[in-house]
Amino acid sequence: MKIDGVPSRTVVSRPSEGCVEVIDQTVLPHELRWARVASVAEAAHAIRSMQVRGAPLIGATAAYGLAIGCGHDASDAALDRAVADLAATRPTAANLRWALRRMRDRLDPLPVPDRAAAAWAEAEAIAEDDVSANRAIGRYGLDLLQRLRPGDRPLEVMTHCNAGWLATVDRGTALSPVYAAWDEGLPVHVWVSETRPRNQGLLTAWELAHHGVPHTAVADSTAGVLIRQRRVDAVLVGADRIAANGDVANKVGTYLKALACFDNGVPFYVAAPLSTVDTGCPSGAEIPIEERDGEELRVVQGVDATGAPSSVRQLPQGEPVSNPAFDVTPSRLITAIITERGIWTPA
Amino acid sequence: MKIDGVPSRTVVSRPSEGCVEVIDQTVLPHELRWARVASVAEAAHAIRSMQVRGAPLIGATAAYGLAIGCGHDASDAALDRAVADLAATRPTAANLRWALRRMRDRLDPLPVPDRAAAAWAEAEAIAEDDVSANRAIGRYGLDLLQRLRPGDRPLEVMTHCNAGWLATVDRGTALSPVYAAWDEGLPVHVWVSETRPRNQGLLTAWELAHHGVPHTAVADSTAGVLIRQRRVDAVLVGADRIAANGDVANKVGTYLKALACFDNGVPFYVAAPLSTVDTGCPSGAEIPIEERDGEELRVVQGVDATGAPSSVRQLPQGEPVSNPAFDVTPSRLITAIITERGIWTPA
Repeated sequence: MKIDGVPSRTVVSRPSEGCVEVIDQTVLPHELRWARVASVAEAAHAIRSMQVRGAPLIGATAAYGLAIGCGHDASDAALDRAVADLAATRPTAANLRWALRRMRDRLDPLPVPDRAAAAWAEAEAIAEDDVSANRAIGRYGLDLLQRLRPGDRPLEVMTHCNAGWLATVDRGTALSPVYAAWDEGLPVHVWVSETRPRNQGLLTAWELAHHGVPHTAVADSTAGVLIRQRRVDAVLVGADRIAANGDVANKVGTYLKALACFDNGVPFYVAAPLSTVDTGCPSGAEIPIEERDGEELRVVQGVDATGAPSSVRQLPQGEPVSNPAFDVTPSRLITAIITERGIWTPA
Repeated sequence: MKIDGVPSRTVVSRPSEGCVEVIDQTVLPHELRWARVASVAEAAHAIRSMQVRGAPLIGATAAYGLAIGCGHDASDAALDRAVADLAATRPTAANLRWALRRMRDRLDPLPVPDRAAAAWAEAEAIAEDDVSANRAIGRYGLDLLQRLRPGDRPLEVMTHCNAGWLATVDRGTALSPVYAAWDEGLPVHVWVSETRPRNQGLLTAWELAHHGVPHTAVADSTAGVLIRQRRVDAVLVGADRIAANGDVANKVGTYLKALACFDNGVPFYVAAPLSTVDTGCPSGAEIPIEERDGEELRVVQGVDATGAPSSVRQLPQGEPVSNPAFDVTPSRLITAIITERGIWTPA
């Protein structure tokens, strides 16, 4: 997608320098800053600290991290350590483990001296495949949106968190059909949920604004009233892990939106590449839910009156807090899952 | 209830000075400040700016505001103006119009010179009745909680917004049964929803902390995962207006919690005095939903590193925002409504 008119990806490969540069999403939308990732440890830090986030982008960054590590030491022992370090960063996203497995499958049979180049090529392929998959998701999703198209007003789509191009290498998952619709001239308006406590909705608002797509920011709790008042034609979200039975783990709050859709007969779509499907996970009950630091809820990031990055404390440090980052939406509430291979209706 | 060990109400009557003092809830929990209300305009400002909030407290403050006005001018014309000004402050809370009507019913038959004293007495009676009603709600609600009592661990109650003593003259609505349980030695733990965008959950955390009741603050979006994981035995909320058919308007996000309860067989209780019931309103569809200033979402209040009140901007001033303050929960999702006259099961 474009930043200030210039095409960009969220992760820019610098093979000659043995590093990648990533957009540091911890300071967006208040500041656009790039972070250099030049070691396995830096890749693990970028994922854990959420400089990069979104299941597909986490997968691609982990792949690049492993490739960067191979440039220093491609022995079996070093690979084992790097994979373990990267896999331990976030427990829920399936794409992380999928990308690392794909890298291992490619590298393990090779002699150690051949691994560095192969690893870089495989990481590039994972990134390219992500972009292609997301474009295909956009086309399949656009078909669904076209069918919902109201005659007399823009199509009203609600999303949650950020499943736009910032959550992927490019193009996005849930927002890919929205961008496809916008590019085809289908009038669309997006309800953007703030997505407390990390406020990834602000990333969604930022990228929609950069692309010119009309949107309105709302508190997460408004999903119910907006859906009940028929101000939403479809909810479209991404996924962090999809179980074999079609249960979907995604950013906490997704399940509530699915319930509101179900209660009001509004379609609820999940958009995700097949790399998000964990066939080894029979149902949502087996998906681990990450519990994150309570300070994310206690302290809110933003800018001060001069526009400089700033924060305020809402709750004292000792205040007891629980901060589960994901929830599971049972497949019975999901109208369809949009993948790069077509539409899956598990229910 | 008590502040730092000293019993207090949210509104303290000063009849000899012709004013009341109210806790200014716009700066809580970061600062405890009292605001003096000495005119109809100041009462209207206190309600509109949410220095006082919560349907029962809004009603009592409006009654005192009218009594204060009568001390200056108790003519029919002045009463008409005062009632109109006070009624226009917030559109959703039923108790506001109920309290003003009760005041008019008492004052209209009286000669003008007798009205000032009668108005003050009636406002005091409205405040006293609120405290009595909330105590009765506590007793009826405690019966329900006793039946849910697990053998081996504290009872897990989730609430939304603030329906504690800060939302009333004293004792609270949804939290009244919780305080009754705690006072009777029934172990209880409260899940406190942040309640974006005004974060009234922080008021709930503040008053529970002052009363010693164990609690945990969570983002609003976590209601689904916590209820689905059976970490909640009951959800207990207040109400801003209850339609004749039992549909309940309450702080935005309530409907989503009710859906999550219904989907998981967890009881969902509404606690409110009968003054919240609008028998003239056949169903929730007729309840007006207040749309508030988008700056509430764009700017977050808190304290800086020194503990001084501060704020950060999350979204630029021009960023499109929608900010509906309430939603409607249909009666079919409500296990019971706890009133001062007993338990009502509209469904």
